[in-house]
Amino acid sequence: MNETTITTPPGTPFIDVVREFDASPAKVFRAWTDPELVPQWLGPVGTTMTLVEYDATTGGRYSYVHRDESGEYSFRGVFHAVVANERIVQTFQYDGWPDDVSIETLTFEDLGGRTRVRTHSVFPSVESRDAMIESGMEHGLRDSMSRLDEVLAR
Amino acid sequence: MNETTITTPPGTPFIDVVREFDASPAKVFRAWTDPELVPQWLGPVGTTMTLVEYDATTGGRYSYVHRDESGEYSFRGVFHAVVANERIVQTFQYDGWPDDVSIETLTFEDLGGRTRVRTHSVFPSVESRDAMIESGMEHGLRDSMSRLDEVLAR
Repeated sequence: MNETTITTPPGTPFIDVVREFDASPAKVFRAWTDPELVPQWLGPVGTTMTLVEYDATTGGRYSYVHRDESGEYSFRGVFHAVVANERIVQTFQYDGWPDDVSIETLTFEDLGGRTRVRTHSVFPSVESRDAMIESGMEHGLRDSMSRLDEVLAR
Repeated sequence: MNETTITTPPGTPFIDVVREFDASPAKVFRAWTDPELVPQWLGPVGTTMTLVEYDATTGGRYSYVHRDESGEYSFRGVFHAVVANERIVQTFQYDGWPDDVSIETLTFEDLGGRTRVRTHSVFPSVESRDAMIESGMEHGLRDSMSRLDEVLAR
């Protein structure tokens, strides 16, 4: 079992996530950027995901909807930079909180057949970062990482 | 003379700027987004600016080069959201520090013929925010705001 480490220093607008995968950077990067694969793992267990658009290229946009028993949740963003198998910089917005756009930097580190993914997120305020944590982000993230393990194992 | 207020709380990754202009939000917004007008004011006095691309629409990109006696400086970003006369959310990157992508939220507030522009910037770390301040950002910003006054007065 690969561990998901989530770091959220109090009083800061940062969330850092570190996760290793038993697959090469090329394979992990593809699962992160291929519009066929993303809906198979992104989001908590029990949700279905519909991609509206997902153009993981520098300057591209994404937009998707998560649905579960309690309703629909829409998310969107823009890819500032996409470097294949190495790095993604993207914005992130939950449509319920449209003023709180955050920016995420993902790096894919080659561990020799395995991959370490680091995600550094910065929110526009400490309060919006705290609200994201309180929304249950951590639960959804851990689910997503386990589901991604399954996609990579196929 | 309109004052430019720059707030940079120590130990945070934030830069906040407040500036009023003697022109309507529509006019100020146009100066901020029209590729013909932007090069007339953005940047320190003594620099020339070349736009490579400047598509100020949701999902659009921008890229420009500042030139002065000491050299060339390239900047780029992506527009996460552009709401005419109201709001712009965009990423910002200086090519010399490609890992330090920040995100800026601009709001255009109608003061009845005059406009208050607020810019909230968030950097990926306190250190990258501090480096931006030490680079002379404040001087360039005050120059830009004065030059923008002149463009608006035409």
